[in-house]
Amino acid sequence: MPPTSQTLTAERILEATEEVLRRHGPAKATVVDVARALGVSHGSVYRHFRTKAALREAVTKRWLDRTSERLARIVTAGGSPEERLRAWLAALFEAKRHKAGDDPELFATYTVLTDENGTVVGEHIADLTGQLTRIIEAGTGSGAFMAPDPAAAARAVFHATGRFHDPGYAREWQRPGVQEEFEAVVDLLLRGLTSP
Amino acid sequence: MPPTSQTLTAERILEATEEVLRRHGPAKATVVDVARALGVSHGSVYRHFRTKAALREAVTKRWLDRTSERLARIVTAGGSPEERLRAWLAALFEAKRHKAGDDPELFATYTVLTDENGTVVGEHIADLTGQLTRIIEAGTGSGAFMAPDPAAAARAVFHATGRFHDPGYAREWQRPGVQEEFEAVVDLLLRGLTSP
Repeated sequence: MPPTSQTLTAERILEATEEVLRRHGPAKATVVDVARALGVSHGSVYRHFRTKAALREAVTKRWLDRTSERLARIVTAGGSPEERLRAWLAALFEAKRHKAGDDPELFATYTVLTDENGTVVGEHIADLTGQLTRIIEAGTGSGAFMAPDPAAAARAVFHATGRFHDPGYAREWQRPGVQEEFEAVVDLLLRGLTSP
Repeated sequence: MPPTSQTLTAERILEATEEVLRRHGPAKATVVDVARALGVSHGSVYRHFRTKAALREAVTKRWLDRTSERLARIVTAGGSPEERLRAWLAALFEAKRHKAGDDPELFATYTVLTDENGTVVGEHIADLTGQLTRIIEAGTGSGAFMAPDPAAAARAVFHATGRFHDPGYAREWQRPGVQEEFEAVVDLLLRGLTSP
């Protein structure tokens, strides 16, 4: 079935964009490159994404959203706030480590894209620290955590665990001992949050 | 007084090496470049540093040592272990922020040098976490801190504050609000260490 027989949705364009990026690296992924990969006119792609910048921003957001959507499920899952906080931080580390380890070239490509899309990254970080805030609020509500300002505590936890989610540390994530380092930091932060 | 009339010490060579790096960037600082800057024969420099790699490693170590020597004074200073831990982390952040902000080009040059001198950097980090261990041990001794393994706790504190000393974050250090972010992380870690 030729691609043109399917409806050209934004999602199909973004899938094709990721494939173009995977094959040709971060310099590619213009509207024209993606139209060619889909076998459609570039006018069809322009109806969804009016500029190369808009297309690159949308594919970056889609990539980041895959992580935040998975983490959001932990916020509303069962378990104590402490268990959910541990599970959330472990899932964030795991998601980033997998992205970096399974397909290092695509990860490097997305690192270039995140560097050029500061607004999308800022929104992603705000989304993640918002999720952390909700877990910490649940803990202050139940008496498990002491945090007069849950949003500030969430940002502190996010910053203190940067070594385990910031792409700049990707080289460290395959080293032996990194899991123990992660757990030592999380233990210390959890003790800080539960401290009277 | 021409430079050759002074005794050519390793320290004078390293000072000249830093000056060569400051003026010409990380690609420079070979034994020959430095001999020329000092107005001496390269044979004289080779008596102190036998290879370009040895010279570059020594100048990197000297740069890192300037930070660790200043911090070492806090380890043995007066004040409670909590005060010393706060002062030590603040001094580390301050030292790195100054290095990055006062002379960004030299900082970028040293970032290249630290990337190529992994052993020296490893020793520097071991030195710093050793200093932190001594402060935490003083705190467990006085009952101020609860840390069954002070060396592991020191590494966790060092990792959790990476955002405020790792050169990869240098861009963040001039942003408004970074001091509050730093203090929020330190407060949380201190609560973790004092938690029963």
